[in-house]
Amino acid sequence: MAMEAARLSSSLAAAAFLARRPPRAYPISLSRRLPLLRLFASASGSGGDGRVVALSSDELRKRRGLSSPSAATDSVSGGDEKLRSLRRLFSRPDIAIDAYIVPSQDAHQSEFIAECFMRRAYLTGFTGSAGTAVVTKDKAALWTDGRYFLQAEKELSHEWTLMRSGNHGVPTTSEWLNDVLPSGGRVGIDPFLFSFDAAEELKNAILTKNHELVLIRSMNLIDEIWGDSRPEPPKRPTRVHDIKYAGIDVTSKLSFVRSQLAENGCDAMVISMLDEVAWLLNMRGSDVPHSPVFYSYLIVDVSTATLFVDSNKVPEDVLEHLEKAGLKLKPYEAILLAAKGVKLWLDSSSVNAAIVSAFKSSCDAYKESKGKAGRRVEEKDKTPDDTASLNGELNAMFQASPVTLAKATKNEAEVEGMKNSHLRDAAALAEFWCWLEEEVCKNVSLTEVQVAEKLLEFRQNQEGFIETSFDTISGYGANGAIIHYRPTPESCSSVGSDNLFLLDSGAQYIDGTTDITRTVHFGEPSARQKECFTRVLQGHIALDQAVFPERTPGFVLDVLARSSLWKIGLDYRHGTGHGVGAALNVHEGPQSISYRYGHLTALQKGMIVSNEPGYYEDNSFGIRIENLLLIKELSLANSFGGIPYLGFEKLTFVPIQSKLIDPSLLSFSEIDWVNEYHEQVWEKVSPLVSGDARDWLWKNTRPILYKTQ
Amino acid sequence: MAMEAARLSSSLAAAAFLARRPPRAYPISLSRRLPLLRLFASASGSGGDGRVVALSSDELRKRRGLSSPSAATDSVSGGDEKLRSLRRLFSRPDIAIDAYIVPSQDAHQSEFIAECFMRRAYLTGFTGSAGTAVVTKDKAALWTDGRYFLQAEKELSHEWTLMRSGNHGVPTTSEWLNDVLPSGGRVGIDPFLFSFDAAEELKNAILTKNHELVLIRSMNLIDEIWGDSRPEPPKRPTRVHDIKYAGIDVTSKLSFVRSQLAENGCDAMVISMLDEVAWLLNMRGSDVPHSPVFYSYLIVDVSTATLFVDSNKVPEDVLEHLEKAGLKLKPYEAILLAAKGVKLWLDSSSVNAAIVSAFKSSCDAYKESKGKAGRRVEEKDKTPDDTASLNGELNAMFQASPVTLAKATKNEAEVEGMKNSHLRDAAALAEFWCWLEEEVCKNVSLTEVQVAEKLLEFRQNQEGFIETSFDTISGYGANGAIIHYRPTPESCSSVGSDNLFLLDSGAQYIDGTTDITRTVHFGEPSARQKECFTRVLQGHIALDQAVFPERTPGFVLDVLARSSLWKIGLDYRHGTGHGVGAALNVHEGPQSISYRYGHLTALQKGMIVSNEPGYYEDNSFGIRIENLLLIKELSLANSFGGIPYLGFEKLTFVPIQSKLIDPSLLSFSEIDWVNEYHEQVWEKVSPLVSGDARDWLWKNTRPILYKTQ
Repeated sequence: MAMEAARLSSSLAAAAFLARRPPRAYPISLSRRLPLLRLFASASGSGGDGRVVALSSDELRKRRGLSSPSAATDSVSGGDEKLRSLRRLFSRPDIAIDAYIVPSQDAHQSEFIAECFMRRAYLTGFTGSAGTAVVTKDKAALWTDGRYFLQAEKELSHEWTLMRSGNHGVPTTSEWLNDVLPSGGRVGIDPFLFSFDAAEELKNAILTKNHELVLIRSMNLIDEIWGDSRPEPPKRPTRVHDIKYAGIDVTSKLSFVRSQLAENGCDAMVISMLDEVAWLLNMRGSDVPHSPVFYSYLIVDVSTATLFVDSNKVPEDVLEHLEKAGLKLKPYEAILLAAKGVKLWLDSSSVNAAIVSAFKSSCDAYKESKGKAGRRVEEKDKTPDDTASLNGELNAMFQASPVTLAKATKNEAEVEGMKNSHLRDAAALAEFWCWLEEEVCKNVSLTEVQVAEKLLEFRQNQEGFIETSFDTISGYGANGAIIHYRPTPESCSSVGSDNLFLLDSGAQYIDGTTDITRTVHFGEPSARQKECFTRVLQGHIALDQAVFPERTPGFVLDVLARSSLWKIGLDYRHGTGHGVGAALNVHEGPQSISYRYGHLTALQKGMIVSNEPGYYEDNSFGIRIENLLLIKELSLANSFGGIPYLGFEKLTFVPIQSKLIDPSLLSFSEIDWVNEYHEQVWEKVSPLVSGDARDWLWKNTRPILYKTQ
Repeated sequence: MAMEAARLSSSLAAAAFLARRPPRAYPISLSRRLPLLRLFASASGSGGDGRVVALSSDELRKRRGLSSPSAATDSVSGGDEKLRSLRRLFSRPDIAIDAYIVPSQDAHQSEFIAECFMRRAYLTGFTGSAGTAVVTKDKAALWTDGRYFLQAEKELSHEWTLMRSGNHGVPTTSEWLNDVLPSGGRVGIDPFLFSFDAAEELKNAILTKNHELVLIRSMNLIDEIWGDSRPEPPKRPTRVHDIKYAGIDVTSKLSFVRSQLAENGCDAMVISMLDEVAWLLNMRGSDVPHSPVFYSYLIVDVSTATLFVDSNKVPEDVLEHLEKAGLKLKPYEAILLAAKGVKLWLDSSSVNAAIVSAFKSSCDAYKESKGKAGRRVEEKDKTPDDTASLNGELNAMFQASPVTLAKATKNEAEVEGMKNSHLRDAAALAEFWCWLEEEVCKNVSLTEVQVAEKLLEFRQNQEGFIETSFDTISGYGANGAIIHYRPTPESCSSVGSDNLFLLDSGAQYIDGTTDITRTVHFGEPSARQKECFTRVLQGHIALDQAVFPERTPGFVLDVLARSSLWKIGLDYRHGTGHGVGAALNVHEGPQSISYRYGHLTALQKGMIVSNEPGYYEDNSFGIRIENLLLIKELSLANSFGGIPYLGFEKLTFVPIQSKLIDPSLLSFSEIDWVNEYHEQVWEKVSPLVSGDARDWLWKNTRPILYKTQ
């Protein structure tokens, strides 16, 4: 699945509090968020048996109590009343604010969030995944990016002003607040929904007009007006992620965290990223669509580890698993009580402002209690750390979580699980493509949504399948040119044989996570389409074959995937590769391959990245070719500088349509790459399929012939 | 000529005040200096007719009153006395310091400097180009990088401690000062020799031990002890750089600077980079070796422009040229008197701390004079800018000089001059290579220095030749593996037919500047050498053929030149490309092609860069292939994003030795590149040569044949 890049970089980056995990260590001061897929249309829900099944977007909307985008009038009348209720709260003496900011986030900077946290969508009626609402006493504005301008226009009532982020002259949220609020205003936020960094940046940005940032910790104002109709927080049970897939037991992982604490002179660490908690505890959940995580926080200190989670979600076997590793359980909401007079390791790009401010208060309380104990005790206990907290400062070290990198570099069991799940996924895809080709050739009319649903069926038949890893991007013809296109049953196209069909999809399996894009033509592709496809393929091959010394940051390799397109004046407006979790989130950091952000994180052995160059011709067609790659150490004849050289190993084994390749544009070695890949696909996947699918696989893995360049 | 990269990046970068023009706008906070070639051995001096001729390094040393590196004893006794004299100055009441720092720089951050400014070499006896000396009351230490460890060991007396920058555990100069000086020390510098940024960084670094940075503006302590034996400042006449080569007249260039001032709300600008002054005034000089510049400062304000230069250097015709453009002349030393109560545009990475501190004083004086004039006047005149200066702050805008980019993007006349001078240079090189091949085949014994001197002869026969653009790097066999190798007559090798010969050289012509490297073998190259050469060539070709959208920073392209080497586990420890001036400095910014620094300056139409990948096998051989490239706009079938796509046009036309190419490693299109290049070389250069040289050119531009990969 491609990442949003250029379009978001300019203005949404400026609206800094929209940013997920601002890259503190990065050279280019661009805040960014990992790609946000649309959350609503044909997302998946939970069936009665706990198994996740596909739901139509309409049904899902109904279940979520959200207005349909076609029912704009409902949205209008509802929006008015909600704004009135919200503004009534502004003047309550315990609140007393002039503006309230409602972001899309949950308290964990998650990409996919539970329905009960979709407050911005509830308030505004706008159901796109990315957006920030700001309400003052007499104005209401919503910021979103180019992907959602049309949708937002349809869904917002007339009381809302649409702020088209990225368009020339559109202010950021803080610029707008500085403009519309009389100096000295009070701007309220729910501090759970802002990372500490984002809250600090916002605080400073509005300080120029002397506005005060008010952290309203006692309640979320939207939840207050949502009332009884607000969906319940998710209650689905968690499960143990088997050690045969996890590879390393919880005790060892906790020891690693504690050694990191000791090395850095810290006493405790708050882990708030949901995938980091899941990875560290070898647990999985299903609180949100697509990501096998559960709402929780984890605090690890030198001797104890406490999981803050709704205990109803923890079945007996999971409890036993946790107790074996010495974990204690506390309620999810108790997180704010946890801070003590210790030196805390804080990843301020992910830990929310509510936790940090509570910790600050407890530092102050600690200081006071020390004061009461008298001079002698104070002197005796005085350490440099105490001094920091006595000075009223945060007794904390601000540094990226060490779990992020540990999780990103997969161990052998995780690699094994990723490989196995990818082969089963490939078998499902071979069956699917065989089926689709036949249907289209028989002129059966199938919509983009129906095709995506059928793909889900094939995947469901595979062992260990859990759910989709993101909403399938199924785009025929011009729809394929919309990078984050999501078909809706009401408006989508049929898949035919006159144009290209782009399909970007992925799955969560018990042992791994997949993400693959293929572009095909069921009729006669034009020369233009073949030229563009072949250029994209050359970029894909160049990155796939890259060899690079240890310590090479991902951005360095990005150009390899682009230069074949650049040669004919073409490009694509997204990054080339993102990290992928092992039976975890389909997007994970810290690695990425995108020169636009200049990410300095080195690509390391054991990391998994996507390789997905593309080309999109507006109103015409879209092309993307995506495999997942494992980074491995190579054994070469030389090793200049005495350091290891790294390269990629493919995880994805699904044919690339030969019909779309113009071999005369390829070098011999590029043709060899295609033929060797298809040989591997046949060898690895043919044992897993039979009948027509096997025939299809045979036909689609035949070598292409050299042509003189 | 290759740029110093990795070896300098770690520790010399930390010794921040060594840095030339710290890249303020750059994401990676690495200070760096452009490559520094050795200044002494076989540098050129001036003959009686004003023409520059080659001198042996011994002769040069004598003329400069410097000790010979082999005469270590002289150096020892001399060093002692100098240190004693310097320390006597420490305790003078008007000085009163505990340490003095002596950098290599002149007052303009120049790469090549005049003899009278070689204070660090005079004080220490160490004649390498890069190094910083720090003297306390009882210690003396010299920092230099790996290129110079051996030379420094030889040249330094026993009273000096050699600090091997880049080696593990070696402190930076400020760390060392913080370590050896008792808290609260006074550290003296000559503020002319530090950029404002560097002085600020140093000031803050030593503040941790409560040391004070003392700017001694009244005198340079080394000049004081140097006394009468100090060489005179250069007095050579300047000349007008003809409008047919400069392309744009001085009046237009000054208008451009004034429009920049107006746009940025500034009143005046100090230009202190010598190449920027030379470019802006269409003047050239010969105050330093290799760069056609002259010592001067320029102040441009809204209505006037003042050149601070020794008037003896300005002949009648140059004076007329300057007066026509409205220039006023003042003595070079008068620069400090120039600051007034205006808002100044300051490029603090290049303007020295003496100028800035004088400006600060004049701001204060201005404030005082305003105060005396009484409240009414003060209120009346009060503008936001005045407020800044009234607050005792610098009334300045800190921003990179606008001249840097204007100079880097060459106009048509400059491009024309660069092309023409490169063809004449190519003719000289064809004659030279033809001669050398013949001599070596006849078993004539020629040293690396003799070969370099002969090359100079061939170049001197070309029209418009002025001097070398840097000291020739002439390295046979293992010497070729020393990236910044400079042969000395005493110790250099003979050029034979058993190993590779690397020759990196360049020239200043009246109309352009050249820089070219070729690597050849006069006997039978080994398979290993051919493999490495071919890999370097593939990198050279890949960068040469790159196409990229406007706004692409140089670092993005660097990997194209490396990936063919990386594939077999090889790499090189320098950047791939540097900017080159038009009849100006052989190294100029702001553009560069080096991912290690992540330079964000976009490559722009009209810029010139070198393309010089290499490979160096320690104690064995070195390979580098360097052409200069002009960036031009391409006319392609597509233009995605509606922006221009850029590419390169070669300026250098000298054969690449086919014998060293293994065609079986090349793709057909790479072979086509070689053959098309050689066809162009023949077409462009054969009309300029005759006899044996023409035959040699014919033989060395014959096509190579395809081989199956």
